[in-house]
Amino acid sequence: MHAYRSHTCADLRRDNVGEEVRLAGWVHRIRDHGGVLFVDLRDHYGITQVLCDPDSPVFSQVERLRSEWCVKIDGVVKARSESLVNPKLPTGEIEVYIRDVEVLGAAEELPLIVFGDQEYPEETRLRYRYLDLRREAMQRNMTLRSDVVRGIRQRMWDQSFREYQTPIITASSPEGARDFLVPSRLHPGKFYALPQAPQQFKQLIMVSGFDKYFQIAPCFRDEDPRADRSPTDFYQLDMEMSFVEQQDVFDTIQPVIQGVFEEFGGGKTVDTEWPQISYADAALWYGTDKPDLRNPIKMQVVSDHFRGSGFAIFAKLLEQDGTEIRAIPAPGGGSRKFCDRMNAFAQKEGLPGMGYIFWREQVSPSPEDHIEVEDAAEYLRKKHEFAASKGWLFDEGSQKYFEAAGPLAKNIGPERTEAIRQQLGLGVGDAAFFLGGKPSSFERVAGKARVTIGEELGLTETDRFAFAWIVDFPMYEADEESGEIDFSHNPFSMPQGGIEALDGDPLQVKGYQYDLACNGYELVSGAIRNHRPDIMFKAFELAGYGEDEVRKRFGGMVNAFRFGAPPHGGCAAGIDRIVMLLAEEDNIREVIMFPMNQRAEDLMMGAPSEPAPEQLMELRLRVMPEE
Amino acid sequence: MHAYRSHTCADLRRDNVGEEVRLAGWVHRIRDHGGVLFVDLRDHYGITQVLCDPDSPVFSQVERLRSEWCVKIDGVVKARSESLVNPKLPTGEIEVYIRDVEVLGAAEELPLIVFGDQEYPEETRLRYRYLDLRREAMQRNMTLRSDVVRGIRQRMWDQSFREYQTPIITASSPEGARDFLVPSRLHPGKFYALPQAPQQFKQLIMVSGFDKYFQIAPCFRDEDPRADRSPTDFYQLDMEMSFVEQQDVFDTIQPVIQGVFEEFGGGKTVDTEWPQISYADAALWYGTDKPDLRNPIKMQVVSDHFRGSGFAIFAKLLEQDGTEIRAIPAPGGGSRKFCDRMNAFAQKEGLPGMGYIFWREQVSPSPEDHIEVEDAAEYLRKKHEFAASKGWLFDEGSQKYFEAAGPLAKNIGPERTEAIRQQLGLGVGDAAFFLGGKPSSFERVAGKARVTIGEELGLTETDRFAFAWIVDFPMYEADEESGEIDFSHNPFSMPQGGIEALDGDPLQVKGYQYDLACNGYELVSGAIRNHRPDIMFKAFELAGYGEDEVRKRFGGMVNAFRFGAPPHGGCAAGIDRIVMLLAEEDNIREVIMFPMNQRAEDLMMGAPSEPAPEQLMELRLRVMPEE
Repeated sequence: MHAYRSHTCADLRRDNVGEEVRLAGWVHRIRDHGGVLFVDLRDHYGITQVLCDPDSPVFSQVERLRSEWCVKIDGVVKARSESLVNPKLPTGEIEVYIRDVEVLGAAEELPLIVFGDQEYPEETRLRYRYLDLRREAMQRNMTLRSDVVRGIRQRMWDQSFREYQTPIITASSPEGARDFLVPSRLHPGKFYALPQAPQQFKQLIMVSGFDKYFQIAPCFRDEDPRADRSPTDFYQLDMEMSFVEQQDVFDTIQPVIQGVFEEFGGGKTVDTEWPQISYADAALWYGTDKPDLRNPIKMQVVSDHFRGSGFAIFAKLLEQDGTEIRAIPAPGGGSRKFCDRMNAFAQKEGLPGMGYIFWREQVSPSPEDHIEVEDAAEYLRKKHEFAASKGWLFDEGSQKYFEAAGPLAKNIGPERTEAIRQQLGLGVGDAAFFLGGKPSSFERVAGKARVTIGEELGLTETDRFAFAWIVDFPMYEADEESGEIDFSHNPFSMPQGGIEALDGDPLQVKGYQYDLACNGYELVSGAIRNHRPDIMFKAFELAGYGEDEVRKRFGGMVNAFRFGAPPHGGCAAGIDRIVMLLAEEDNIREVIMFPMNQRAEDLMMGAPSEPAPEQLMELRLRVMPEE
Repeated sequence: MHAYRSHTCADLRRDNVGEEVRLAGWVHRIRDHGGVLFVDLRDHYGITQVLCDPDSPVFSQVERLRSEWCVKIDGVVKARSESLVNPKLPTGEIEVYIRDVEVLGAAEELPLIVFGDQEYPEETRLRYRYLDLRREAMQRNMTLRSDVVRGIRQRMWDQSFREYQTPIITASSPEGARDFLVPSRLHPGKFYALPQAPQQFKQLIMVSGFDKYFQIAPCFRDEDPRADRSPTDFYQLDMEMSFVEQQDVFDTIQPVIQGVFEEFGGGKTVDTEWPQISYADAALWYGTDKPDLRNPIKMQVVSDHFRGSGFAIFAKLLEQDGTEIRAIPAPGGGSRKFCDRMNAFAQKEGLPGMGYIFWREQVSPSPEDHIEVEDAAEYLRKKHEFAASKGWLFDEGSQKYFEAAGPLAKNIGPERTEAIRQQLGLGVGDAAFFLGGKPSSFERVAGKARVTIGEELGLTETDRFAFAWIVDFPMYEADEESGEIDFSHNPFSMPQGGIEALDGDPLQVKGYQYDLACNGYELVSGAIRNHRPDIMFKAFELAGYGEDEVRKRFGGMVNAFRFGAPPHGGCAAGIDRIVMLLAEEDNIREVIMFPMNQRAEDLMMGAPSEPAPEQLMELRLRVMPEE
């Protein structure tokens, strides 16, 4: 028999009854039932109930076992009586009578209980990560992550991509975040950098003629602490292809992402239609470039209804250039209570508030309304006439009277109010919220309000993954104050329209750049690259970078483009984010085996730490005292 | 039609004749045959011949093309005439008549020619790596590497291992080499380290209950330059298992390695029997712990034949403790010329030389030898008698006279010489070399001599991968001068015999530690780990490390072992080395996409480089002037 186990703790079934077996694992739980000791023995694969009665020669040894001791037991498999079968446990039909036991690894008093769901402060969990990881949820998250990465790899290989490793100790990469530096001992005073992404290298791989590249790549950014991201590094599925257009990249990556969500999404609906939405439309409709399409609400411009209206604030606003009034329809939100709550939400987000209109039913209190006519058209006419006399409306579908409520409705009057209702397609029981000004001043809050409205009204589907490509990103943006032009996203994207497009207004130039949004998160980001040195230098020039500066900062890649660069493009998908969505976790540390805490410390391993003086000497470095 | 290509450059066959196609790739070679321009168009997948005659409207454009321009062509597939079919090219039955051409990326004058085999200095190759990588051999090496890594992953998954990523920005790991440090910005004055290997993490993963772990893991060591290794990092297949003994690890990893060599070994023989050789035997037989078993030579101890013999140097040596005489048999090496060359080899390696004996045929010049007797036994007796009279020997098999030649034979006389010959199983035409002293003084050279002898005599098979597990490594070694005891290899291995074994002579303690040798290289190294804190502290104590020191250096792991650690073990296999063996390359840079040069510089990307003053300021670091 094997030295440690004949079966795992998930293996034994009724078929094994009568067998002499050996199991190894951890004491998950130990109970004393009338003198008989029941031990739930746990390993990575499952749990088996093992037991020992007081007559056993090893009873005293079993009695000494404590939670999380690692033990080996020899025993005989017996069937449980029908009433004691545990259908929730794959091994629930049997139990093992202990004949012999050996402690493989004893445990001191536990700082963190593995069994059950007791919550612990994150610092405790990370300091004793090896105990935390034994918990069921963490075992599940980590194996999920491993399986997802495997599933991604498999799907990339299935599409004839090869994985190539790019350097981790390298030069600064121009991703715009802060580099981690690595001092060179052989060249004191000089530093390497850890790559923020393999961007330049994957483009160089294309210039090297490899055609299809991918990598599950670690990326390093020295970030300031934030709850939902790692302060040091993250993993991405990085991919690049030569001789492709934007749609080719979409057609390649969709089966990978969709397939992984279908395989690991726990049965949730996975959208197979991925709409392509322009950056401008996404901002207008959803107030964000990573919209959650499970939420059906689409915002609309309703400026015309307010121009010159009795609602002076909006009417005045609209006299300024670049302003507009936008409506967030809220089907089912037609109560003053809800509208007031959303108004307060907007105020908390720093806006003066959100105007609203809501439509509620009215019941005629008087008998005059009991009209009896034979002609249907005449009947409806009378109904509307009566409604109008009250300042109400009549809904022909439900045969009900209703009115538009809220101060905004009063200010702009019934006609404009009704025109708005009709544009938005709303009715009794619905509401609409209104934000005005330059879109940049309210768009972010509008987007958040849309999310909150969708959730509060139960409009947002929860068991679904909804995807959308956001396309046509602007290449440039102007600084709000200085008006200076800079790249709005990736400077290496190919401008739509090529070099000629760069002759006009930079702010009108769109790039072949795209993001994939899923349930409100950015999952993928990519571009068709600018592989032509002439277009690249001109694109950088518009953003104020001279040729020398470009050569200095991106020399590796720009030089390579001088020697027959192919058109190419690709994207990168966030592995941690994908796993978080699939595992339904909000905290990135729940899907990383050994994460840093938010202060970028590893309390378990003691990193960072003070170096030995010899180490600094070798690097010719000195740490300066705090000022 | 697709914007860039309807087919790759490896796709077109006779079946496609008549089709309008679009191809994209690089101008591999361009030739002018009687005014017709022939272009070998190359992409990652292959080469297609495209051509253009002077009547073509795009002739002048094709005429301007130069090597390594990236182009797109539209054209018609035509069959080549029978005499022009190129059977070496998968597309050799057809050619494409260019109708239209577009330059996608022009190239300046090339610093490195892609076509052909011209050699370039390594600095040129690395500076223009994107051109170097376009060469056929590099494309082959890189795809091989990618395929090998995939093959390894697949085989690990097939055995129910999961891949888990361990931190790259972490604490110093105790592998004994120099760490790369990463200064922390959030904690100025403190540093992270890049992992030399995920050793501690993989053991923590076992303590966390994951049972089977693997990872294709980057490992970072700040090494001094050496031709055959990367000065910064390398990749290993890192694996670990719980509840296993040494043989379990062997049974797990052999199918992985063997399978990969069978799949990618280019048809060479792959040994399926992997002998287990103790460290002591390996040193004795092969003079190294990474023997090349394709070479059949096994060294032997022949001390007894020299004890008190007429060869005073050896006889005297043997009077000292711990000395021995070892023979390297050299079947087929029986010529003075060869023996002298090997003697000179040993001298070049710093030894006084290697004594030798060789056995050569002698022909009786005199007719007395023509014995005629009827009794066969009598005949042989006479033959031997005659041989003895000449100082020769008679070989009954070949019916030939022969003699042992060389000064050593004379010094020790015919009986001892013959006893040596018989022990070594040598005969006419063979030789043996002799080294004496303490094994540590000659073993390294003996091992090298064995390799050279095997190669020069054609004994070493070339088309074969031969594997051997080297086991039973000593846990400790004594410093030659101080006599101080230290770990000889991995301090985390479990000593054989457990805690009791540590009570005796440390130098007698063997560890459950093992290496896999293949063709003279160490491919894999691993151990069953010491998971018991009591044994670990005692093991460290023997090497002079107190409990505090152990906690300080390996606290992460030692702490974890207090909470129910399972028995576990594993190994790590060098990916770069495996690919080098399969690709038949001696230089590690031939199997890495973007390697550093030997001075740990990346000339293409410009790393390392001087940081911006702000960066140093943020890290509170100052570079000290050179002394």
